[in-house]
Amino acid sequence: MHLDQLVQHIRDKKSFLCVGLDTDPEKLPTPLARSNDVVEFNKQIIHATQSHCVAYKINTAFYEAYGAQGWKWFEETVALIPNTHFIIADAKRGDIGNTSSMYARAFFHHLNCDAITVAPYMGIDSVSPFLSYDNKWVILLALTSNQGARDFQLTEQASGVPLYERVMMTASRWGTPKQLMFVVGATQASHLAKIRQKFPHHFFLVPGVGAQGGSLHDVVKNGISAQVGLLVNASRSIIYASSGEDFASAAAAEAQKMHQDMQSLLAKYDHGRPSA
Amino acid sequence: MHLDQLVQHIRDKKSFLCVGLDTDPEKLPTPLARSNDVVEFNKQIIHATQSHCVAYKINTAFYEAYGAQGWKWFEETVALIPNTHFIIADAKRGDIGNTSSMYARAFFHHLNCDAITVAPYMGIDSVSPFLSYDNKWVILLALTSNQGARDFQLTEQASGVPLYERVMMTASRWGTPKQLMFVVGATQASHLAKIRQKFPHHFFLVPGVGAQGGSLHDVVKNGISAQVGLLVNASRSIIYASSGEDFASAAAAEAQKMHQDMQSLLAKYDHGRPSA
Repeated sequence: MHLDQLVQHIRDKKSFLCVGLDTDPEKLPTPLARSNDVVEFNKQIIHATQSHCVAYKINTAFYEAYGAQGWKWFEETVALIPNTHFIIADAKRGDIGNTSSMYARAFFHHLNCDAITVAPYMGIDSVSPFLSYDNKWVILLALTSNQGARDFQLTEQASGVPLYERVMMTASRWGTPKQLMFVVGATQASHLAKIRQKFPHHFFLVPGVGAQGGSLHDVVKNGISAQVGLLVNASRSIIYASSGEDFASAAAAEAQKMHQDMQSLLAKYDHGRPSA
Repeated sequence: MHLDQLVQHIRDKKSFLCVGLDTDPEKLPTPLARSNDVVEFNKQIIHATQSHCVAYKINTAFYEAYGAQGWKWFEETVALIPNTHFIIADAKRGDIGNTSSMYARAFFHHLNCDAITVAPYMGIDSVSPFLSYDNKWVILLALTSNQGARDFQLTEQASGVPLYERVMMTASRWGTPKQLMFVVGATQASHLAKIRQKFPHHFFLVPGVGAQGGSLHDVVKNGISAQVGLLVNASRSIIYASSGEDFASAAAAEAQKMHQDMQSLLAKYDHGRPSA
Protein backbone atom coordinates (compact mmCIF):
# COMPACT_ATOMS: atom_id res chain seq x y z
CA MET A 1 0.00 0.00 0.00
CA HIS A 2 1.28 3.47 -0.90
CA LEU A 3 1.74 6.10 1.81
CA ASP A 4 -0.90 8.37 0.24
CA GLN A 5 -3.49 5.59 0.29
CA LEU A 6 -2.78 4.83 3.92
CA VAL A 7 -3.15 8.49 4.90
CA GLN A 8 -6.34 8.73 2.82
CA HIS A 9 -7.86 5.72 4.58
CA ILE A 10 -6.99 7.22 7.95
CA ARG A 11 -8.52 10.60 7.08
CA ASP A 12 -11.63 9.12 5.43
CA LYS A 13 -12.34 6.85 8.36
CA LYS A 14 -10.99 9.15 11.07
CA SER A 15 -9.28 6.14 12.55
CA PHE A 16 -5.66 5.08 12.89
CA LEU A 17 -6.54 1.87 14.71
CA CYS A 18 -4.63 -1.32 14.01
CA VAL A 19 -6.21 -4.50 15.34
CA GLY A 20 -3.71 -7.10 16.45
CA LEU A 21 -4.62 -10.67 15.61
CA ASP A 22 -2.56 -12.36 18.33
CA THR A 23 -4.91 -15.29 18.21
CA ASP A 24 -4.12 -18.03 20.69
CA PRO A 25 -6.02 -21.25 19.89
CA GLU A 26 -6.16 -21.95 23.63
CA LYS A 27 -7.96 -18.69 24.33
CA LEU A 28 -10.76 -18.96 21.79
CA PRO A 29 -14.20 -17.99 23.09
CA THR A 30 -16.61 -20.69 24.17
CA PRO A 31 -18.43 -21.12 20.82
CA LEU A 32 -15.17 -21.87 18.98
CA ALA A 33 -13.13 -23.47 21.73
CA ARG A 34 -14.08 -27.03 20.81
CA SER A 35 -13.46 -26.72 17.09
CA ASN A 36 -10.13 -24.91 17.65
CA ASP A 37 -11.05 -22.80 14.64
CA VAL A 38 -8.58 -19.91 14.63
CA VAL A 39 -9.50 -18.84 11.12
CA GLU A 40 -13.24 -18.66 11.87
CA PHE A 41 -12.41 -16.59 14.96
CA ASN A 42 -10.23 -14.20 12.93
CA LYS A 43 -12.92 -14.00 10.24
CA GLN A 44 -15.54 -12.92 12.74
CA ILE A 45 -13.14 -10.47 14.43
CA ILE A 46 -12.19 -8.94 11.07
CA HIS A 47 -15.84 -8.68 10.07
CA ALA A 48 -16.73 -7.04 13.38
CA THR A 49 -13.87 -4.53 13.46
CA GLN A 50 -13.06 -3.57 9.86
CA SER A 51 -15.22 -0.45 9.80
CA HIS A 52 -13.34 0.88 12.83
CA CYS A 53 -9.73 0.18 11.87
CA VAL A 54 -7.36 0.81 8.98
CA ALA A 55 -4.86 -1.97 9.64
CA TYR A 56 -4.45 -5.48 10.97
CA LYS A 57 -1.27 -6.75 12.61
CA ILE A 58 -0.78 -10.49 12.60
CA ASN A 59 1.63 -11.72 15.22
CA THR A 60 3.56 -14.55 13.59
CA ALA A 61 4.53 -16.19 16.89
CA PHE A 62 0.97 -17.21 17.64
CA TYR A 63 0.78 -19.05 14.32
CA GLU A 64 4.29 -20.52 14.26
CA ALA A 65 3.61 -22.11 17.63
CA TYR A 66 1.33 -24.50 15.70
CA GLY A 67 3.81 -25.35 12.96
CA ALA A 68 2.68 -25.98 9.40
CA GLN A 69 -0.98 -25.89 10.53
CA GLY A 70 -0.39 -22.47 12.07
CA TRP A 71 1.14 -21.13 8.87
CA LYS A 72 -1.92 -22.31 7.01
CA TRP A 73 -4.00 -20.26 9.50
CA PHE A 74 -1.74 -17.26 8.88
CA GLU A 75 -2.16 -17.54 5.10
CA GLU A 76 -5.92 -17.96 5.36
CA THR A 77 -6.17 -15.00 7.73
CA VAL A 78 -4.27 -12.69 5.37
CA ALA A 79 -6.68 -13.72 2.60
CA LEU A 80 -9.66 -12.64 4.76
CA ILE A 81 -8.45 -9.05 5.21
CA PRO A 82 -9.99 -6.56 2.73
CA ASN A 83 -7.45 -4.82 0.47
CA THR A 84 -8.54 -1.49 1.92
CA HIS A 85 -6.64 -2.44 5.09
CA PHE A 86 -2.91 -2.28 5.71
CA ILE A 87 -1.55 -5.71 6.69
CA ILE A 88 1.40 -5.94 9.06
CA ALA A 89 3.30 -9.16 9.67
CA ASP A 90 4.53 -8.67 13.22
CA ALA A 91 7.52 -10.91 12.80
CA LYS A 92 10.47 -8.91 14.20
CA ARG A 93 12.85 -10.56 11.74
CA GLY A 94 16.38 -9.50 10.76
CA ASP A 95 19.32 -11.60 9.60
CA ILE A 96 22.26 -11.50 7.18
CA GLY A 97 21.41 -10.30 3.68
CA ASN A 98 20.61 -13.54 1.88
CA THR A 99 18.45 -14.66 4.82
CA SER A 100 16.57 -11.37 5.15
CA SER A 101 15.88 -11.65 1.41
CA MET A 102 14.16 -14.96 2.08
CA TYR A 103 12.07 -13.41 4.88
CA ALA A 104 11.11 -10.51 2.61
CA ARG A 105 9.98 -13.01 0.03
CA ALA A 106 7.99 -14.95 2.63
CA PHE A 107 6.07 -11.97 3.93
CA PHE A 108 5.82 -9.66 0.92
CA HIS A 109 5.63 -12.10 -1.97
CA HIS A 110 4.22 -15.34 -0.61
CA LEU A 111 1.92 -13.86 2.03
CA ASN A 112 1.30 -10.49 0.38
CA CYS A 113 1.57 -8.45 3.57
CA ASP A 114 2.11 -4.67 3.27
CA ALA A 115 4.64 -4.42 6.06
CA ILE A 116 6.88 -6.44 8.34
CA THR A 117 8.33 -5.53 11.71
CA VAL A 118 12.14 -5.84 11.70
CA ALA A 119 14.72 -5.85 14.51
CA PRO A 120 17.66 -3.48 13.89
CA TYR A 121 20.44 -5.20 15.84
CA MET A 122 22.25 -6.65 12.80
CA GLY A 123 22.38 -3.35 10.90
CA ILE A 124 21.99 -2.23 7.32
CA ASP A 125 22.39 -5.45 5.36
CA SER A 126 19.79 -7.16 7.58
CA VAL A 127 17.21 -4.43 6.85
CA SER A 128 17.83 -3.32 3.27
CA PRO A 129 16.52 -6.49 1.55
CA PHE A 130 13.08 -5.58 2.95
CA LEU A 131 13.36 -2.10 1.42
CA SER A 132 13.70 -3.27 -2.17
CA TYR A 133 9.98 -3.91 -2.74
CA ASP A 134 7.68 -1.21 -4.16
CA ASN A 135 4.92 -0.10 -1.80
CA LYS A 136 6.05 -2.50 0.91
CA TRP A 137 7.13 -1.31 4.32
CA VAL A 138 9.71 -1.99 7.00
CA ILE A 139 8.54 -1.18 10.52
CA LEU A 140 11.78 -1.05 12.48
CA LEU A 141 11.90 -1.59 16.24
CA ALA A 142 13.04 1.66 17.86
CA LEU A 143 11.67 2.13 21.38
CA THR A 144 9.43 -0.75 22.37
CA SER A 145 6.65 -0.83 24.95
CA ASN A 146 8.07 -3.52 27.20
CA GLN A 147 10.13 -3.32 30.37
CA GLY A 148 13.19 -4.73 28.60
CA ALA A 149 13.41 -1.56 26.49
CA ARG A 150 15.54 -0.24 29.36
CA ASP A 151 18.21 -2.91 28.96
CA PHE A 152 19.64 -1.65 25.67
CA GLN A 153 17.32 0.72 23.77
CA LEU A 154 17.44 3.41 26.46
CA THR A 155 21.13 3.05 27.28
CA GLU A 156 23.23 6.05 26.43
CA GLN A 157 25.71 5.91 23.61
CA ALA A 158 29.13 7.61 23.72
CA SER A 159 27.72 10.17 21.28
CA GLY A 160 25.25 11.21 24.00
CA VAL A 161 22.04 9.83 22.50
CA PRO A 162 20.17 6.74 23.61
CA LEU A 163 20.60 3.66 21.40
CA TYR A 164 17.04 3.82 20.05
CA GLU A 165 17.70 7.32 18.73
CA ARG A 166 20.89 6.21 17.05
CA VAL A 167 18.91 3.37 15.46
CA MET A 168 16.33 5.84 14.15
CA MET A 169 18.92 8.32 12.87
CA THR A 170 20.95 5.63 11.14
CA ALA A 171 17.98 3.76 9.67
CA SER A 172 16.36 6.93 8.35
CA ARG A 173 19.26 7.03 5.89
CA TRP A 174 18.45 3.52 4.64
CA GLY A 175 14.94 4.23 3.40
CA THR A 176 12.40 7.00 2.97
CA PRO A 177 9.33 7.75 5.11
CA LYS A 178 7.36 6.15 2.26
CA GLN A 179 8.74 2.73 3.10
CA LEU A 180 10.05 2.94 6.65
CA MET A 181 8.08 3.26 9.89
CA PHE A 182 9.29 2.88 13.47
CA VAL A 183 7.86 1.02 16.45
CA VAL A 184 7.49 3.43 19.36
CA GLY A 185 5.63 2.05 22.36
CA ALA A 186 2.68 3.89 23.90
CA THR A 187 4.22 3.30 27.29
CA GLN A 188 7.08 5.61 26.23
CA ALA A 189 4.90 8.76 25.92
CA SER A 190 7.49 10.87 27.74
CA HIS A 191 9.90 10.23 24.86
CA LEU A 192 7.33 10.50 22.09
CA ALA A 193 7.20 14.30 21.74
CA LYS A 194 10.97 14.46 21.40
CA ILE A 195 11.01 11.60 18.92
CA ARG A 196 8.29 13.24 16.81
CA GLN A 197 10.19 16.50 16.75
CA LYS A 198 13.30 14.78 15.43
CA PHE A 199 11.41 12.55 12.98
CA PRO A 200 8.50 14.64 11.71
CA HIS A 201 7.79 12.57 8.57
CA HIS A 202 7.76 8.94 9.63
CA PHE A 203 4.80 6.86 10.62
CA PHE A 204 5.06 5.23 14.03
CA LEU A 205 3.45 1.92 14.86
CA VAL A 206 2.44 2.30 18.48
CA PRO A 207 1.77 -0.81 20.57
CA GLY A 208 1.07 -0.75 24.27
CA VAL A 209 -2.30 1.03 24.43
CA GLY A 210 -4.77 -1.26 26.19
CA ALA A 211 -3.43 -4.37 27.90
CA GLN A 212 0.02 -2.78 28.40
CA GLY A 213 -1.39 0.47 29.86
CA GLY A 214 -0.38 3.29 27.49
CA SER A 215 -2.66 6.33 27.08
CA LEU A 216 -4.16 7.02 23.65
CA HIS A 217 -4.54 10.71 24.47
CA ASP A 218 -0.85 11.09 25.30
CA VAL A 219 0.17 9.18 22.18
CA VAL A 220 -1.83 11.49 19.91
CA LYS A 221 -0.92 14.68 21.73
CA ASN A 222 2.80 13.88 21.61
CA GLY A 223 3.03 11.79 18.48
CA ILE A 224 0.75 13.17 15.78
CA SER A 225 2.35 14.44 12.56
CA ALA A 226 1.12 16.48 9.59
CA GLN A 227 -0.03 13.22 7.99
CA VAL A 228 -1.32 11.84 11.31
CA GLY A 229 1.68 9.51 11.24
CA LEU A 230 0.34 7.04 13.78
CA LEU A 231 -0.96 3.51 13.71
CA VAL A 232 -2.08 2.58 17.20
CA ASN A 233 -2.35 -1.12 17.81
CA ALA A 234 -4.61 -2.92 20.25
CA SER A 235 -4.66 -6.70 20.37
CA ARG A 236 -5.89 -8.45 23.49
CA SER A 237 -8.23 -5.66 24.64
CA ILE A 238 -10.21 -6.05 21.40
CA ILE A 239 -9.99 -9.67 20.35
CA TYR A 240 -10.54 -11.02 23.85
CA ALA A 241 -13.13 -8.42 24.91
CA SER A 242 -15.48 -11.30 25.67
CA SER A 243 -14.93 -15.03 25.92
CA GLY A 244 -18.62 -15.81 25.44
CA GLU A 245 -21.08 -16.07 22.55
CA ASP A 246 -20.88 -12.30 22.11
CA PHE A 247 -17.11 -12.21 21.42
CA ALA A 248 -17.52 -10.60 17.99
CA SER A 249 -19.94 -7.90 19.07
CA ALA A 250 -17.81 -7.23 22.16
CA ALA A 251 -14.75 -6.83 19.89
CA ALA A 252 -16.76 -4.49 17.65
CA ALA A 253 -17.81 -2.42 20.66
CA GLU A 254 -14.25 -2.17 21.93
CA ALA A 255 -12.94 -1.20 18.47
CA GLN A 256 -15.75 1.33 18.10
CA LYS A 257 -14.85 2.87 21.43
CA MET A 258 -11.25 3.34 20.31
CA HIS A 259 -12.48 4.62 16.95
CA GLN A 260 -14.64 7.25 18.65
CA ASP A 261 -11.75 8.29 20.89
CA MET A 262 -9.59 8.61 17.79
CA GLN A 263 -12.23 10.73 16.02
CA SER A 264 -12.30 13.13 18.98
CA LEU A 265 -8.54 13.26 19.21
CA LEU A 266 -8.13 13.90 15.47
CA ALA A 267 -10.69 16.71 15.68
CA LYS A 268 -8.61 18.21 18.43
CA TYR A 269 -5.04 17.56 17.29
CA ASP A 270 -5.01 16.89 13.51
CA HIS A 271 -4.14 20.23 11.96
CA GLY A 272 -2.18 18.66 9.11
CA ARG A 273 -4.80 19.38 6.49
CA PRO A 274 -6.91 22.54 6.37
CA SER A 275 -10.58 21.73 6.99
CA ALA A 276 -12.77 21.72 3.85
CA MET B 1 20.68 -31.48 25.23
CA HIS B 2 22.69 -30.95 28.41
CA LEU B 3 25.98 -29.04 28.29
CA ASP B 4 27.94 -32.11 29.42
CA GLN B 5 26.52 -34.20 26.57
CA LEU B 6 27.38 -31.54 24.03
CA VAL B 7 30.95 -31.30 25.29
CA GLN B 8 31.23 -35.11 25.32
CA HIS B 9 30.05 -35.35 21.71
CA ILE B 10 32.60 -32.71 20.70
CA ARG B 11 35.45 -34.48 22.49
CA ASP B 12 34.45 -37.97 21.30
CA LYS B 13 34.20 -36.86 17.70
CA LYS B 14 36.94 -34.22 17.81
CA SER B 15 34.61 -31.96 15.89
CA PHE B 16 32.71 -28.82 16.75
CA LEU B 17 31.23 -28.48 13.31
CA CYS B 18 27.67 -27.30 12.86
CA VAL B 19 26.19 -27.82 9.40
CA GLY B 20 23.74 -25.11 8.37
CA LEU B 21 20.71 -26.35 6.46
CA ASP B 22 19.94 -23.08 4.63
CA THR B 23 18.23 -25.08 1.94
CA ASP B 24 16.89 -23.00 -0.93
CA PRO B 25 14.48 -25.01 -3.11
CA GLU B 26 15.69 -23.00 -6.09
CA LYS B 27 19.29 -24.08 -5.55
CA LEU B 28 18.77 -27.83 -5.31
CA PRO B 29 21.30 -29.93 -7.24
CA THR B 30 20.37 -31.28 -10.64
CA PRO B 31 19.02 -34.68 -9.51
CA LEU B 32 16.51 -33.05 -7.15
CA ALA B 33 15.81 -29.78 -8.96
CA ARG B 34 12.76 -31.07 -10.79
CA SER B 35 11.07 -32.68 -7.82
CA ASN B 36 11.76 -29.65 -5.61
CA ASP B 37 12.36 -32.14 -2.82
CA VAL B 38 13.93 -30.11 0.01
CA VAL B 39 13.46 -32.88 2.55
CA GLU B 40 15.17 -35.51 0.38
CA PHE B 41 18.06 -33.09 -0.12
CA ASN B 42 18.36 -32.46 3.61
CA LYS B 43 18.12 -36.20 4.28
CA GLN B 44 21.04 -36.94 1.98
CA ILE B 45 23.07 -34.01 3.36
CA ILE B 46 22.45 -35.16 6.94
CA HIS B 47 23.37 -38.74 6.07
CA ALA B 48 26.56 -37.56 4.33
CA THR B 49 27.72 -35.17 7.05
CA GLN B 50 26.57 -36.57 10.41
CA SER B 51 29.81 -38.39 11.20
CA HIS B 52 31.72 -35.12 10.81
CA CYS B 53 29.53 -32.70 12.75
CA VAL B 54 27.93 -32.40 16.19
CA ALA B 55 25.13 -29.95 15.34
CA TYR B 56 22.75 -28.87 12.62
CA LYS B 57 21.44 -25.33 12.30
CA ILE B 58 18.21 -24.90 10.40
CA ASN B 59 17.66 -21.41 9.07
CA THR B 60 13.94 -20.76 9.46
CA ALA B 61 13.82 -18.07 6.74
CA PHE B 62 14.48 -20.57 3.98
CA TYR B 63 11.48 -22.62 5.10
CA GLU B 64 9.12 -19.76 5.97
CA ALA B 65 9.59 -18.38 2.45
CA TYR B 66 7.46 -21.33 1.33
CA GLY B 67 4.68 -20.86 3.87
CA ALA B 68 2.86 -23.83 5.37
CA GLN B 69 4.65 -26.18 2.95
CA GLY B 70 7.98 -24.81 4.13
CA TRP B 71 7.09 -25.40 7.76
CA LYS B 72 6.26 -28.98 6.93
CA TRP B 73 9.75 -29.28 5.40
CA PHE B 74 11.20 -27.78 8.61
CA GLU B 75 9.34 -30.30 10.79
CA GLU B 76 10.34 -33.24 8.61
CA THR B 77 13.96 -32.08 8.57
CA VAL B 78 14.13 -31.88 12.38
CA ALA B 79 12.76 -35.43 12.52
CA LEU B 80 15.62 -36.66 10.30
CA ILE B 81 18.39 -35.42 12.60
CA PRO B 82 19.78 -38.10 14.95
CA ASN B 83 19.34 -37.32 18.65
CA THR B 84 23.12 -37.40 19.07
CA HIS B 85 23.21 -34.04 17.27
CA PHE B 86 22.43 -30.62 18.71
CA ILE B 87 19.62 -28.93 16.73
CA ILE B 88 19.60 -25.15 16.40
CA ALA B 89 16.62 -23.23 15.03
CA ASP B 90 18.30 -20.19 13.51
CA ALA B 91 15.30 -17.95 13.92
CA LYS B 92 16.64 -14.75 15.51
CA ARG B 93 13.38 -14.20 17.35
CA GLY B 94 12.63 -11.85 20.27
CA ASP B 95 9.41 -10.07 21.22
CA ILE B 96 7.41 -9.04 24.30
CA GLY B 97 7.02 -11.74 26.94
CA ASN B 98 3.78 -13.40 25.92
CA THR B 99 4.93 -13.51 22.30
CA SER B 100 8.39 -14.87 23.08
CA SER B 101 6.63 -17.57 25.11
CA MET B 102 4.76 -18.59 21.96
CA TYR B 103 8.02 -18.71 19.98
CA ALA B 104 9.65 -20.81 22.71
CA ARG B 105 6.76 -23.21 22.49
CA ALA B 106 7.03 -23.35 18.69
CA PHE B 107 10.70 -24.20 18.62
CA PHE B 108 11.27 -26.13 21.84
CA HIS B 109 7.97 -27.93 22.32
CA HIS B 110 6.39 -28.29 18.90
CA LEU B 111 9.61 -28.68 16.86
CA ASN B 112 11.80 -30.16 19.62
CA CYS B 113 14.90 -28.12 18.75
CA ASP B 114 17.68 -27.86 21.35
CA ALA B 115 18.38 -24.19 20.81
CA ILE B 116 17.08 -21.05 19.18
CA THR B 117 18.94 -17.93 18.11
CA VAL B 118 17.45 -14.81 19.73
CA ALA B 119 17.93 -11.08 19.04
CA PRO B 120 18.65 -9.03 22.19
CA TYR B 121 17.25 -5.62 21.21
CA MET B 122 14.04 -5.87 23.27
CA GLY B 123 15.81 -6.86 26.50
CA ILE B 124 15.18 -9.22 29.38
CA ASP B 125 11.48 -9.99 29.02
CA SER B 126 11.96 -10.87 25.35
CA VAL B 127 14.67 -13.41 26.16
CA SER B 128 13.72 -14.94 29.51
CA PRO B 129 10.74 -17.00 28.23
CA PHE B 130 13.25 -19.03 26.21
CA LEU B 131 15.30 -19.67 29.35
CA SER B 132 12.55 -21.45 31.28
CA TYR B 133 12.95 -24.83 29.54
CA ASP B 134 15.25 -27.54 30.93
CA ASN B 135 18.17 -28.45 28.70
CA LYS B 136 17.10 -25.98 26.03
CA TRP B 137 19.32 -23.14 24.91
CA VAL B 138 19.19 -19.51 23.93
CA ILE B 139 21.90 -18.46 21.47
CA LEU B 140 21.88 -14.68 21.75
CA LEU B 141 23.16 -12.44 18.97
CA ALA B 142 26.21 -10.59 20.27
CA LEU B 143 28.71 -9.71 17.52
CA THR B 144 27.51 -10.98 14.17
CA SER B 145 29.57 -11.80 11.07
CA ASN B 146 27.95 -9.33 8.67
CA GLN B 147 28.95 -5.84 7.63
CA GLY B 148 25.96 -4.30 9.45
CA ALA B 149 27.51 -5.34 12.80
CA ARG B 150 29.25 -1.96 12.61
CA ASP B 151 26.00 0.01 12.61
CA PHE B 152 25.05 -0.70 16.22
CA GLN B 153 26.85 -3.70 17.75
CA LEU B 154 30.27 -2.08 17.53
CA THR B 155 29.18 1.44 18.52
CA GLU B 156 30.56 2.66 21.78
CA GLN B 157 28.31 3.10 24.78
CA ALA B 158 28.68 5.96 27.26
CA SER B 159 30.08 3.40 29.70
CA GLY B 160 33.02 2.91 27.32
CA VAL B 161 32.21 -0.58 26.03
CA PRO B 162 30.78 -1.47 22.63
CA LEU B 163 27.08 -2.36 22.56
CA TYR B 164 27.73 -6.07 21.89
CA GLU B 165 29.78 -6.28 25.10
CA ARG B 166 27.03 -4.63 27.09
CA VAL B 167 24.60 -7.14 25.60
CA MET B 168 26.84 -10.02 26.68
CA MET B 169 27.45 -8.62 30.17
CA THR B 170 23.78 -7.94 30.77
CA ALA B 171 22.51 -11.21 29.30
CA SER B 172 25.00 -13.29 31.23
CA ARG B 173 23.01 -12.32 34.33
CA TRP B 174 19.79 -13.68 32.80
CA GLY B 175 20.92 -17.27 32.38
CA THR B 176 23.82 -19.62 33.05
CA PRO B 177 26.42 -20.92 30.58
CA LYS B 178 24.41 -24.16 30.68
CA GLN B 179 21.55 -22.54 28.80
CA LEU B 180 22.97 -19.44 27.13
CA MET B 181 25.39 -19.20 24.21
CA PHE B 182 26.38 -16.18 22.15
CA VAL B 183 26.70 -15.65 18.41
CA VAL B 184 30.17 -14.30 17.65
CA GLY B 185 31.04 -14.11 13.96
CA ALA B 186 34.24 -15.67 12.60
CA THR B 187 34.84 -12.46 10.68
CA GLN B 188 35.32 -10.75 14.07
CA ALA B 189 38.45 -12.70 15.02
CA SER B 190 40.22 -9.54 16.23
CA HIS B 191 37.56 -9.21 18.96
CA LEU B 192 37.31 -12.89 19.76
CA ALA B 193 40.31 -13.21 22.08
CA LYS B 194 39.05 -10.32 24.21
CA ILE B 195 35.53 -11.70 24.26
CA ARG B 196 36.76 -15.15 25.32
CA GLN B 197 38.82 -13.61 28.11
CA LYS B 198 35.75 -11.81 29.49
CA PHE B 199 33.40 -14.76 28.98
CA PRO B 200 35.45 -17.88 29.67
CA HIS B 201 32.53 -20.23 30.27
CA HIS B 202 30.03 -19.64 27.47
CA PHE B 203 29.74 -21.52 24.23
CA PHE B 204 29.93 -19.34 21.12
CA LEU B 205 28.12 -20.18 17.93
CA VAL B 206 30.46 -18.95 15.21
CA PRO B 207 29.09 -18.30 11.73
CA GLY B 208 31.11 -16.76 8.94
CA VAL B 209 33.73 -19.44 8.25
CA GLY B 210 33.50 -20.45 4.59
CA ALA B 211 31.27 -18.34 2.32
CA GLN B 212 31.71 -15.26 4.53
CA GLY B 213 35.52 -15.59 4.71
CA GLY B 214 36.40 -16.10 8.41
CA SER B 215 39.45 -18.23 9.33
CA LEU B 216 38.89 -21.43 11.33
CA HIS B 217 42.42 -21.31 12.72
CA ASP B 218 41.94 -17.78 14.08
CA VAL B 219 38.57 -18.72 15.59
CA VAL B 220 40.06 -21.66 17.48
CA LYS B 221 43.24 -19.89 18.52
CA ASN B 222 41.33 -16.90 19.88
CA GLY B 223 38.07 -18.49 20.92
CA ILE B 224 38.67 -21.92 22.45
CA SER B 225 37.69 -22.44 26.09
CA ALA B 226 38.37 -25.15 28.66
CA GLN B 227 35.30 -26.98 27.35
CA VAL B 228 36.13 -26.16 23.72
CA GLY B 229 33.22 -23.72 23.85
CA LEU B 230 32.83 -23.37 20.09
CA LEU B 231 30.30 -24.47 17.53
CA VAL B 232 31.54 -23.37 14.13
CA ASN B 233 28.87 -23.24 11.47
CA ALA B 234 29.27 -23.71 7.75
CA SER B 235 26.24 -23.66 5.48
CA ARG B 236 26.64 -22.89 1.80
CA SER B 237 30.24 -24.15 1.52
CA ILE B 238 29.05 -27.63 2.56
CA ILE B 239 25.50 -28.05 1.30
CA TYR B 240 26.20 -26.50 -2.09
CA ALA B 241 29.68 -28.03 -2.52
CA SER B 242 28.42 -29.50 -5.80
CA SER B 243 25.29 -28.91 -7.81
CA GLY B 244 25.59 -32.21 -9.67
CA GLU B 245 24.83 -35.88 -9.03
CA ASP B 246 27.67 -35.98 -6.51
CA PHE B 247 26.21 -33.30 -4.22
CA ALA B 248 26.05 -35.58 -1.17
CA SER B 249 29.57 -36.96 -1.50
CA ALA B 250 30.88 -33.45 -2.19
CA ALA B 251 29.15 -32.23 1.00
CA ALA B 252 30.68 -35.16 2.88
CA ALA B 253 34.14 -34.31 1.55
CA GLU B 254 33.77 -30.66 2.51
CA ALA B 255 32.53 -31.56 6.01
CA GLN B 256 35.33 -34.10 6.37
CA LYS B 257 37.89 -31.46 5.44
CA MET B 258 36.59 -29.14 8.15
CA HIS B 259 36.46 -32.09 10.57
CA GLN B 260 40.11 -32.89 9.90
CA ASP B 261 41.08 -29.24 10.35
CA MET B 262 39.19 -29.23 13.64
CA GLN B 263 40.95 -32.42 14.79
CA SER B 264 44.34 -30.80 14.13
CA LEU B 265 43.34 -27.56 15.81
CA LEU B 266 41.98 -29.37 18.87
CA ALA B 267 45.21 -31.37 19.14
CA LYS B 268 47.08 -28.07 19.15
CA TYR B 269 44.85 -25.82 21.22
CA ASP B 270 42.52 -27.94 23.39
CA HIS B 271 44.21 -28.11 26.76
CA GLY B 272 40.98 -28.14 28.71
CA ARG B 273 41.19 -31.80 29.64
CA PRO B 274 44.40 -33.58 30.55
CA SER B 275 45.21 -36.24 27.96
CA ALA B 276 44.42 -39.83 29.01
